[in-house]
Amino acid sequence: MADEIILLDFWPSMFGMKVRIALAEKGLKYEYRDEDLFNKGPLLLEMNPIHKKIPVLIHNGKPICESQIIVQYIDEVWKDKSPLLPSDPYHRAQARFWADYIDKKLHLLGARLWRTKGEEQEANKKEYIECLKLLEGELGDKPYFGGENFGFVDVNLMPYFSWLYVFEIAANFSIEAECPKLITWAKRCMEKESVSTSLPDHQKLYDFFLQLKKWHGIE
Amino acid sequence: MADEIILLDFWPSMFGMKVRIALAEKGLKYEYRDEDLFNKGPLLLEMNPIHKKIPVLIHNGKPICESQIIVQYIDEVWKDKSPLLPSDPYHRAQARFWADYIDKKLHLLGARLWRTKGEEQEANKKEYIECLKLLEGELGDKPYFGGENFGFVDVNLMPYFSWLYVFEIAANFSIEAECPKLITWAKRCMEKESVSTSLPDHQKLYDFFLQLKKWHGIE
Repeated sequence: MADEIILLDFWPSMFGMKVRIALAEKGLKYEYRDEDLFNKGPLLLEMNPIHKKIPVLIHNGKPICESQIIVQYIDEVWKDKSPLLPSDPYHRAQARFWADYIDKKLHLLGARLWRTKGEEQEANKKEYIECLKLLEGELGDKPYFGGENFGFVDVNLMPYFSWLYVFEIAANFSIEAECPKLITWAKRCMEKESVSTSLPDHQKLYDFFLQLKKWHGIE
Repeated sequence: MADEIILLDFWPSMFGMKVRIALAEKGLKYEYRDEDLFNKGPLLLEMNPIHKKIPVLIHNGKPICESQIIVQYIDEVWKDKSPLLPSDPYHRAQARFWADYIDKKLHLLGARLWRTKGEEQEANKKEYIECLKLLEGELGDKPYFGGENFGFVDVNLMPYFSWLYVFEIAANFSIEAECPKLITWAKRCMEKESVSTSLPDHQKLYDFFLQLKKWHGIE
């Protein structure tokens, strides 16, 4: 019997994008269902009763929740094609460390960046850039974070670069000027079909962002 | 060459306790170094320059940071004795989900419990108990969270039960009355030498808690 894979997602979600990239890397076909987060569907509530959040991967009827856990699950089940986590335990721990850092820091700082103004925004921008520079240092001169091959940290970081265009306009700065190597890396990742087909169009994301600001009452 | 294992830790830390339990489960000998968190030592700052936090496991000179990542590392390196994560990818994902839930919810709610008073504390207590009841439901009638054997979720949850005595006094309630099955589970875990020798004495923890309240200016 062929695998039945359903992804409950919301297209602008960075967390959802990670899962889309991982599924595409493994060459898996799946049914994509975009959720209305203001009116969550019964399947989402049934499959993720604890957090009630996307993304949820439903594999042969069984739900897996939380993006990093889903990406690891995909990597463990379909391990023969495009391994994402390295096989060495120390390198695995390092990859998990940076993926965790990205989720903890970059997500929070990105949200602060567009929700603030003036001096507060300047301070947040400084911290955001420091965080990116740290990641750039970790990348070094390697083509991908794990070395020669696109892997776990790349999957976790690329969705944040999808939002880059929005953040640059919102906070008036150029990440290319600050972190040129990261931009080269992002462009390299975008050459992969698994990445480019999993991320939304910049303009569409920017239009969504304008809507998001309205919802939050930010001018 | 024998493995050189050093653990940088702070004895009341729930995160440190997880790592101690995992090391004990694997029967590993290691050098324990208690850090002064008000005056962090040069080795901690060198080994965890990003977060500057304990616990850090130093294995043959190489640092691994973040408790859940460390426990997975220990499980992957010393995989022949007392496996902590199940071998099936779906069960692994479920174990990771609950460990993540414990870290995200229980830690935050526990801190809120003793930092608040009156009605606010009552609301926090209600939420804390709901969270424990959810975990109790997940445990069900199994001896351990993963089934017949002590595993990853047990390692992640037991340190919170070490703080139970403190929380019960601080917020005036009985977890045994609310979640009797969880208490039976905790007592079962405490019968394991790997657990009982890794957790601090209740009275010592309570004395530390009184000190902690003073530092936070809470009477």
